[in-house]
Amino acid sequence: MDLVGIHHDGSDLYVSHDSPEFGEVVQVRLRVWDQLGIDRVSVRSVLDGEAQLFHASITHEANGDVWWQADLPIRNVVQHYRWFVKGEAIEYGWLNAAGFFPHDVTDASDFSISVSSPTPEWLKRAQVYQIFPDRFAKSDREYEKPSWLVQRDWSQLPEGRSANTAYEWFGGDLWGAAEKLDYLQTLGVNTVYFTPFFPARSTHRYDAHSFESVDELLGGDDALKYFVEQAHKRGMRVIGDITLNHCGVTHEWFVKAQAGEHPYREFFTFDEKLPQGYECWLGVRTLPKFNFNSEELIKRFITDDKSIIRKWLRTPFGLDGWRVDVANMAGRQGEFDLTRDIAKIVRAVVREEGEDKVLIAEHFHDAGPDLQGHGWHGTMNYSAFQRPILGWLAGKEYREETLQHPVPMPHYSGQHMVTSIEAFSARMPWRSRINSWPTLGSHDTARTATVINDDTNLKIAVTLLCTLPGAPMIFMGDELGAVGHWGEQARTPMPWDAVENQRPALLDFYTEVLHLRSSHEALTSGSLRWISIAENAVVFIRETKSETLLICAARTTDSVNLPNWCLANTDLESIHGSAVLHSREIVIDQPGVTIWRAQ
Amino acid sequence: MDLVGIHHDGSDLYVSHDSPEFGEVVQVRLRVWDQLGIDRVSVRSVLDGEAQLFHASITHEANGDVWWQADLPIRNVVQHYRWFVKGEAIEYGWLNAAGFFPHDVTDASDFSISVSSPTPEWLKRAQVYQIFPDRFAKSDREYEKPSWLVQRDWSQLPEGRSANTAYEWFGGDLWGAAEKLDYLQTLGVNTVYFTPFFPARSTHRYDAHSFESVDELLGGDDALKYFVEQAHKRGMRVIGDITLNHCGVTHEWFVKAQAGEHPYREFFTFDEKLPQGYECWLGVRTLPKFNFNSEELIKRFITDDKSIIRKWLRTPFGLDGWRVDVANMAGRQGEFDLTRDIAKIVRAVVREEGEDKVLIAEHFHDAGPDLQGHGWHGTMNYSAFQRPILGWLAGKEYREETLQHPVPMPHYSGQHMVTSIEAFSARMPWRSRINSWPTLGSHDTARTATVINDDTNLKIAVTLLCTLPGAPMIFMGDELGAVGHWGEQARTPMPWDAVENQRPALLDFYTEVLHLRSSHEALTSGSLRWISIAENAVVFIRETKSETLLICAARTTDSVNLPNWCLANTDLESIHGSAVLHSREIVIDQPGVTIWRAQ
Repeated sequence: MDLVGIHHDGSDLYVSHDSPEFGEVVQVRLRVWDQLGIDRVSVRSVLDGEAQLFHASITHEANGDVWWQADLPIRNVVQHYRWFVKGEAIEYGWLNAAGFFPHDVTDASDFSISVSSPTPEWLKRAQVYQIFPDRFAKSDREYEKPSWLVQRDWSQLPEGRSANTAYEWFGGDLWGAAEKLDYLQTLGVNTVYFTPFFPARSTHRYDAHSFESVDELLGGDDALKYFVEQAHKRGMRVIGDITLNHCGVTHEWFVKAQAGEHPYREFFTFDEKLPQGYECWLGVRTLPKFNFNSEELIKRFITDDKSIIRKWLRTPFGLDGWRVDVANMAGRQGEFDLTRDIAKIVRAVVREEGEDKVLIAEHFHDAGPDLQGHGWHGTMNYSAFQRPILGWLAGKEYREETLQHPVPMPHYSGQHMVTSIEAFSARMPWRSRINSWPTLGSHDTARTATVINDDTNLKIAVTLLCTLPGAPMIFMGDELGAVGHWGEQARTPMPWDAVENQRPALLDFYTEVLHLRSSHEALTSGSLRWISIAENAVVFIRETKSETLLICAARTTDSVNLPNWCLANTDLESIHGSAVLHSREIVIDQPGVTIWRAQ
Repeated sequence: MDLVGIHHDGSDLYVSHDSPEFGEVVQVRLRVWDQLGIDRVSVRSVLDGEAQLFHASITHEANGDVWWQADLPIRNVVQHYRWFVKGEAIEYGWLNAAGFFPHDVTDASDFSISVSSPTPEWLKRAQVYQIFPDRFAKSDREYEKPSWLVQRDWSQLPEGRSANTAYEWFGGDLWGAAEKLDYLQTLGVNTVYFTPFFPARSTHRYDAHSFESVDELLGGDDALKYFVEQAHKRGMRVIGDITLNHCGVTHEWFVKAQAGEHPYREFFTFDEKLPQGYECWLGVRTLPKFNFNSEELIKRFITDDKSIIRKWLRTPFGLDGWRVDVANMAGRQGEFDLTRDIAKIVRAVVREEGEDKVLIAEHFHDAGPDLQGHGWHGTMNYSAFQRPILGWLAGKEYREETLQHPVPMPHYSGQHMVTSIEAFSARMPWRSRINSWPTLGSHDTARTATVINDDTNLKIAVTLLCTLPGAPMIFMGDELGAVGHWGEQARTPMPWDAVENQRPALLDFYTEVLHLRSSHEALTSGSLRWISIAENAVVFIRETKSETLLICAARTTDSVNLPNWCLANTDLESIHGSAVLHSREIVIDQPGVTIWRAQ
């Protein structure tokens, strides 16, 4: 977002170590276009509450850029910092994660490095497929059906907003899911995230009545064991979904708590003045909220040797991590805000179970502050990805107020899109950004194809999903163009017939860009530099020490000139898309995304 | 900072109650120019971590504005919120404390209301005079002088940066200060803030060797009692200065701690790996840092019935509050960040000693986060006032790096100044903004007259000090044009001869604007709306339910048109300054500040 020829981000090119310990000194680097005549560069950081400056000096010059480096001491849990520059073309300036400013700025958008254990290396390379198990694939096994089920045929659409919504049963199971591992691997995903598989009184299962077993309707414990085993054989990872914020009203703990039984009573908050008599998720009676002021709850849920968090990460299940449901609310209640404390405890326990286990938070709005420090590895990235991208690419008529977004979709220019992406991203450490899961849609939102409603724009969105920072998450069926106007209605069963009878073009496109991403280190790990931001076309560079990719996304025909301060004397080879580079001008003859690789 | 005809801030006009309790519902109001055709307004707030919208409806229309109102439930300690608007002229927009945005924004600059006890009413009406007691006024009493003193003559300037700096003694005392109460009252100040009066081994006394008595060199306990008594008789308040972060190396606690005596050892952090063997303020050996992980320290310093914090607020001393030295660092140390916890405890204790007692934090940079919640009432406002104002008005040649500002002074346009003021202000609740102490200079900075070095610009700065939100603080002697290039050198003795022989014009100007401020409720309590922001002239409105003031500050001759969306059909009467209003055009024939009052 600088666009002045000065750049820093948290990637390897610019930061020597993203998971330091207390007392470590991290080298941070600034890249400055040599024509700016910058003659003073410093890093400002706040240590124990006091702002200090650290002198930077030039390490080398290359391809028209001068590289400055400073030593940043890691004194506090979150060491935030920004750059001060001064010289011929810039009398006074600050560079922070939100951009370049010719006036003083607050610390709100500083770059930051947090003291913490390293994030598992595989996470940034993850390509995630979200499965809502009732609707993905069914085996030929028969299950005993509870009376509350409303049986539906696979070819039907969900009713969505009706009295039946939570009970509509399509009959997918984990045995069926395991039969589709070939499909997933061919598509190019390497990580499966299941929405809850615990027994519950709904088919979304966010109202678990136990965290101790896999719902028999999904095939029970054996089906999960088999799925994980088969996935691991293919080098794929499997993530579970845990409602740290609440359980179902039929959960054993809550039933005992209501009966006044110790210690369960303290696991929840009972208060006669509340409409339901107890705290629950957004006032929904069936979802009583956990009270993390209870040490006993923390033990049983998280820290004890036989805790729920631990059990499923261990043999014989061996999940590779958790996606934490409504992580934005877990531990927050009136006067108390324990979310970051709880996240830190869960993170430590998850790491104890294996250095490769991960922790991803659901968070629909400004997740940054919760990602500072020792907590979640990343978030499902709606605010810094889905919403800005859809703001630029959604159909003009799309005004539906999707779940969790209390206001209508805006229609963005390219400038608005990028400003919004960077504003939200600036609030999290780079490490969290690259390990978060950007997504175009999930089981909680309208379907991507419904919102965008245009084949070309849909392809642009999917390509941005796979080329901007983060580990892309695809909601099952989005690759087949599934439609639906809001969360519940959009939880459509997979149209396997369509795949088997004729492999759709959209599926091939998803496959192409997922494979493109996994074969380019710059896309999974690289720095991000915005090069040009206009109404209808945006251009950026993803870059590691060994690879530089130039990416242009355009929603109309257009032409863009590369600025003087980048890619001087560099030969670029097109590897995807149809725009053409004439000297320094990108000529976009049809909307889409084009990618060049520096030679 | 909206400049679109949509406004909200935390003043009485827009918020029904700024110090609510948990569970209270606060009415918040939005003022919208009727020509914008806005047809939907909502307030968005995050409750227990989840974003929610609250519907606003129209309460009335007046003078071309439509007033919308919503009920905001206070659920958490800090209830932050922003406005969503939609209509004919604005398809999609957010208003937060940093301005108006046509795209999604993070929560970083949301408006906020904190649950807390009310701030004493008098604080926002305070006009503060900072006294460095060794250099303000001397009585004819003689004191026994310790050997480390370097005696100086009143007519000399401090040496500043020398081996003598901390020991230069000019001989001011509190008896002498009391003789100048007439002078202070005539000037128009109503609050005196003394830098430390505790016995120490320096004349700045930030290295106290006891917090239990007033330094005999300043007249001892009796002199303070007398000063406070005389000030109170005049309706003036007196604030002390407490180093919550550290004490002097000769302090009884530290001496015992070094000897290994319990419980004093735990009051500090001893560590052989540190250069001094213990934690100290910025590595300065003589200032060992307190360790607030010690419960015993918290008791003795703050909470016990005979604590230091309590003692001086009580009879017979009766101080009206504390200014907390390096409040930005107190409680912050490596892994621990206890500052906000400590601030909350001190605030509660101060309130127990009297509902009119106040607590102001020293904080040189981004103070906002420390002002959320139950802590300090306000801050000495450097970042959101001094630095932006000097950026606009400082002399072109002024480049000195003042203490605590690790980078040179920028030269600002009016836009940069206002953006910077609002960016820093947006991070604190309105309540803290209006109760903070904006200042042009202090004992820690260069002298205002040195930095600005131009009579006209100096007067503009002083008028902005008294017309922008906050309780202005004047460093003794600034009203007489004292000079000095950095903190220590600028701690010049008061040139009383100049006052007595000829009352300087600058003194009269300070007197005029301080009296102007105290006689206009809009200046002490009013809302702030920016009306026009240009390179060399800025225009704003301060307004309460009963008074509207239009204020134009210009550093060159210029002309400014009032936008259509304000002061329609309003007669304006000039009450200060020389610019002229022709219809809707302000014609500025000479640089300065002009103020009009709406009839």
